[in-house]
Amino acid sequence: MFEQLGLIGCGLIGGSFALALKRAGLVKRVVGYSKSPSTTERAKQLGVIDIDVPSALQAVSGSDLVLIAVPVAATEATLKAIRHLVTDTMLVMDVGSTKSDVVNAARRALGDKFGSFVPAHPIAGKEVAGVQHAEADLFKGKQVILTPVEHTQTAQLQQAIEVWEQVGSHITQMSPEAHDAAFAAVSHLPHMIAFAMMNAINSQEQGKDYLSMAGPGFRDFTRIAASDPHVWRDVLLANRDELLAQSKNFQRHLQTLELMLSNANGEALEGLIRQASQSRSAWTMNKKSRQ
Amino acid sequence: MFEQLGLIGCGLIGGSFALALKRAGLVKRVVGYSKSPSTTERAKQLGVIDIDVPSALQAVSGSDLVLIAVPVAATEATLKAIRHLVTDTMLVMDVGSTKSDVVNAARRALGDKFGSFVPAHPIAGKEVAGVQHAEADLFKGKQVILTPVEHTQTAQLQQAIEVWEQVGSHITQMSPEAHDAAFAAVSHLPHMIAFAMMNAINSQEQGKDYLSMAGPGFRDFTRIAASDPHVWRDVLLANRDELLAQSKNFQRHLQTLELMLSNANGEALEGLIRQASQSRSAWTMNKKSRQ
Repeated sequence: MFEQLGLIGCGLIGGSFALALKRAGLVKRVVGYSKSPSTTERAKQLGVIDIDVPSALQAVSGSDLVLIAVPVAATEATLKAIRHLVTDTMLVMDVGSTKSDVVNAARRALGDKFGSFVPAHPIAGKEVAGVQHAEADLFKGKQVILTPVEHTQTAQLQQAIEVWEQVGSHITQMSPEAHDAAFAAVSHLPHMIAFAMMNAINSQEQGKDYLSMAGPGFRDFTRIAASDPHVWRDVLLANRDELLAQSKNFQRHLQTLELMLSNANGEALEGLIRQASQSRSAWTMNKKSRQ
Repeated sequence: MFEQLGLIGCGLIGGSFALALKRAGLVKRVVGYSKSPSTTERAKQLGVIDIDVPSALQAVSGSDLVLIAVPVAATEATLKAIRHLVTDTMLVMDVGSTKSDVVNAARRALGDKFGSFVPAHPIAGKEVAGVQHAEADLFKGKQVILTPVEHTQTAQLQQAIEVWEQVGSHITQMSPEAHDAAFAAVSHLPHMIAFAMMNAINSQEQGKDYLSMAGPGFRDFTRIAASDPHVWRDVLLANRDELLAQSKNFQRHLQTLELMLSNANGEALEGLIRQASQSRSAWTMNKKSRQ
């Protein structure tokens, strides 16, 4: 049980975390701050936060739990702004989709308070942004990846595990580097492809007509293309090297299919499709291959 | 109202069509044939068809409506096999995902009976195949594209429109060529990309670990990768030229994003993501830009 959650960034993820903690009875009071005053005000009107404050520092003041839920590129400036109020017993977490850059930013910004910071990535989201879409159930049944490093204090790590478990999440721990390699493959590249797909269709004279005929397969395939541009610009840039490597590997496999197609090699083409189809059919979300 | 539906191919789509027609009271009797006798038997056990027969020709005998629901590459052989029982007043339709090749195959196979054939493509499906997944609601609220050509008889075209409308579908008419260009962009390429994505991840040593961390975005993005390998081999091959052109165009747009990323050009990157995001947010399924 925490006395006070200091929420920095009252968007979809931050707002959902506040709601989840409140419903689980894990926090007495939520003090929130967002860069845009209208967002903070809206979060208060919606009952997502109890008290709205005009600075990140004021959200940290008196808090024993701090969640930083801002675009990843804003993490370092945020941590610098709150640094002198971070204590040895406070739990500070982020929710960013990339982890190496966030850990490096936290190390630089927090200095000797870095041990209070537990890097976290809840694998949950929606294609719509904003506190109005926040919901207490967002993390239920979802994975949360924690990427503690050698200076992370075990007390805070244990608290982080408990708080995420109590809102219904499954915890996986790994290094920031392993996290970023995995998410370049299974999240960042799919987003980049979905963005490119929409742009590729819109670049064509008949693109609008084409879109009017698209069905459920297209709907699901491109859902993530509607993601927040600012958030995803930051994510793609923060994980650039891994993402570019994954993109090259993907294009090699796409070009292999193109070659089978050009050669009208139906047998080889069907073999490659079968591998993909069997692998996808066997996959289920949250089935861990290791702990 | 039809006396008898001759169903050739008792899979997901064919089976769902039979169930939809039965529930709408549009047909008295369904006679079914599948290449695999066990499929035909199963369709009968499940009540999808009333009578099972051991040949396509026998399914056509006595039918005033014939649906050919086989992989597109099998369409021509199927039409040849039934040709001498096709009459001037019979309505014969297919359900293939490509239309130029099907129209050409029908022209060759049916000769002077070609006018009875109405090429149809219901934009409905599931990532699971087989008659056990058939459902009467599959076409409800979905689009069906009809691609009649100059020799298609208006009587059959009108009947086709009515039968699809009565099972709840929205009808769009266009040329086979326009259909294939559009579906290369919004369906065939997304499938090929989803296949390539699964293969690209599986090609990596840690692919299994990566997959274990994937979340809801990945789940939806790759859903179509689980599609039937034989069906999709045929579709991709049948629409090869349009598909390769769409794939090249897509890769140009992907490489533009890669370039912005390599140059750490955040502003341009965000601009491109914003275009994609706004376009996808504004899109809704079955919103026609023209009739």
